[in-house]
Amino acid sequence: MVEPGAQLAALVALGGVDEAVRAAAVAELDRKTKPRGSLGRLEELAAQVAAIRGTVRPDPLVPAIVVAAADHGVAAEGVSAYPQEVTAQMVANFASGGAAVCVLARAVGAELVVVDAGVATPFDHPAVRSLRLGPGTANAVEGPAMTRDQAIGAILAGALLAAELTARGVTAVGLGEMGIGNTTSAAAVSAALLGCRPADVCGPGTGLDREGVARKAEVVARMLERNGPDARDPLGVLAAVGGFELGVLVGVALGAAARRGVVVLDGFITGAAALVALALAPALRGYVVASHRSAEPGHRLVLEALELAPLLELELRLGEGSGAALALPIVAAARDLLVDMATFGGAGVTDTGR
Amino acid sequence: MVEPGAQLAALVALGGVDEAVRAAAVAELDRKTKPRGSLGRLEELAAQVAAIRGTVRPDPLVPAIVVAAADHGVAAEGVSAYPQEVTAQMVANFASGGAAVCVLARAVGAELVVVDAGVATPFDHPAVRSLRLGPGTANAVEGPAMTRDQAIGAILAGALLAAELTARGVTAVGLGEMGIGNTTSAAAVSAALLGCRPADVCGPGTGLDREGVARKAEVVARMLERNGPDARDPLGVLAAVGGFELGVLVGVALGAAARRGVVVLDGFITGAAALVALALAPALRGYVVASHRSAEPGHRLVLEALELAPLLELELRLGEGSGAALALPIVAAARDLLVDMATFGGAGVTDTGR
Repeated sequence: MVEPGAQLAALVALGGVDEAVRAAAVAELDRKTKPRGSLGRLEELAAQVAAIRGTVRPDPLVPAIVVAAADHGVAAEGVSAYPQEVTAQMVANFASGGAAVCVLARAVGAELVVVDAGVATPFDHPAVRSLRLGPGTANAVEGPAMTRDQAIGAILAGALLAAELTARGVTAVGLGEMGIGNTTSAAAVSAALLGCRPADVCGPGTGLDREGVARKAEVVARMLERNGPDARDPLGVLAAVGGFELGVLVGVALGAAARRGVVVLDGFITGAAALVALALAPALRGYVVASHRSAEPGHRLVLEALELAPLLELELRLGEGSGAALALPIVAAARDLLVDMATFGGAGVTDTGR
Repeated sequence: MVEPGAQLAALVALGGVDEAVRAAAVAELDRKTKPRGSLGRLEELAAQVAAIRGTVRPDPLVPAIVVAAADHGVAAEGVSAYPQEVTAQMVANFASGGAAVCVLARAVGAELVVVDAGVATPFDHPAVRSLRLGPGTANAVEGPAMTRDQAIGAILAGALLAAELTARGVTAVGLGEMGIGNTTSAAAVSAALLGCRPADVCGPGTGLDREGVARKAEVVARMLERNGPDARDPLGVLAAVGGFELGVLVGVALGAAARRGVVVLDGFITGAAALVALALAPALRGYVVASHRSAEPGHRLVLEALELAPLLELELRLGEGSGAALALPIVAAARDLLVDMATFGGAGVTDTGR
């Protein structure tokens, strides 16, 4: 058996996307019946998909959304507008198809994979994949949220899930999450990795008022003070102030990219997971698409740090993968344009080279 | 037979969307398993769809895209990076399925209706609907682009087409266009109706350089000077400096709205058509969705005037209905959320009222 540490080392030794294919895709797009560049960001996206898939004629994308759920010890500090029991209730709602992301996944024809990464009470439901690292994290104002081994375990479990999905044909993976208190964890992770103040990355989450946001920022400050996470050790940051669902999503992103999958982010929390994943494996950037910019203020900073521009501006602040779901058809359509559009020569359309 | 003038009068006597249904839809969305308002603009969109369709439980949307093409006499002034023959070549490309909008319509499962509203050379292709008003408009720097009767004829033809589409089940219509020179017509229409300077609404279109844009603005100024269109007479503006495809799209929008259809705009040119349609029938605003903000600078002004915020920011500048196509799945998904999501009560999820 390979050591978890060695498995993680293999995972983060991710190769980059194929830049030669990207260049060939750009040239191919310039032969299509449209003024050069007139499809704007769809052209960049099409070329990115080609570079990820390693071919200028990728097959139609097969999308899936992984929604990872977990509880957070820090919820005890009153950082959410909702009680912790809502995490489990919402996982049940995911499993029975009634949540927003379920509706959106159906709408866009994406498979939905619901993961229990560590909800306080275990699930026994055929529609929920158990990758439990524990009954929620410890309260990070009192010590590390999880052990380093748990952080590695979460990442490897996510990577294994991604490998399974890609093995049965999935080529674009949207990331989603659920976990009462997880905007607080995401804020702490972001503040630690970006070196910014807690107040810069703390927002209302699912519905805090101004006082609640101030309290959240104060809790994040205590989490950071207690654990002293070091930005040069992203795994340590994840363990100190992160969450099990964040760890699993780090692994899903890395595992999907390792199999040439497109990784589609959702909002602030998946963005924080991407920060960890990119700090571990910088080559991941080429595989990542930002779906939307959420109403959560920290998301803007995270996207800037990731150097990603979102496709959608819908003022979403739900999470679950809702924005990722809506971006999947756009990513799929970008691929279709690259492969299926006629060329000037083929269609007999005058090309002025503009 | 009813007089065209009387038919137009009936068309512009459009009733508004159902505000009581909108309010009921907002209340219904507040019962869904998500924090209040956390789906952002999707919630507004869902309520708008309900208000248009006149029910809080609308059927799944059935989308179509109407791409209207025509030639413009003003193309003789050298206002485009492409020669006029490209209009006809692109209509052939639409008919054979190779253009961007064809690929995108297939990607989003929308029917594509290609209309010859007045290309210089007539089409004889089963996949092209002939609603020809003439072999392109006259050069509007020398006199009106079309007669007032032609403008009415274009609108009524578009409305009849929309009635036909809605009669066979279409409930969301995306607008698209093609016509070498038509950003110039759209700029003149916009300048006339918004009372702004030609330079404010003239951009590169499909690929003009800075000099070309300046020449275009000068041509628009001459069009306005020669014809003196009056913003209080939108039909006169359309006739003086518009285009046949713009007229047909005005009619498609009004006709679709009259049958409770959602009208999805594309870029600058369909925006100019919407300006005319709204000036004729202010109640139309409730039926209109802005899909994207294009890279064409005039589009920003048009959207501001229409008081519409776009769903997508993709820097598209192609037209054809490409942005409308990409917005259709988002509109459809918004409806799905309203109808298919579980409620707090139904799913047993704790509702804190936030």
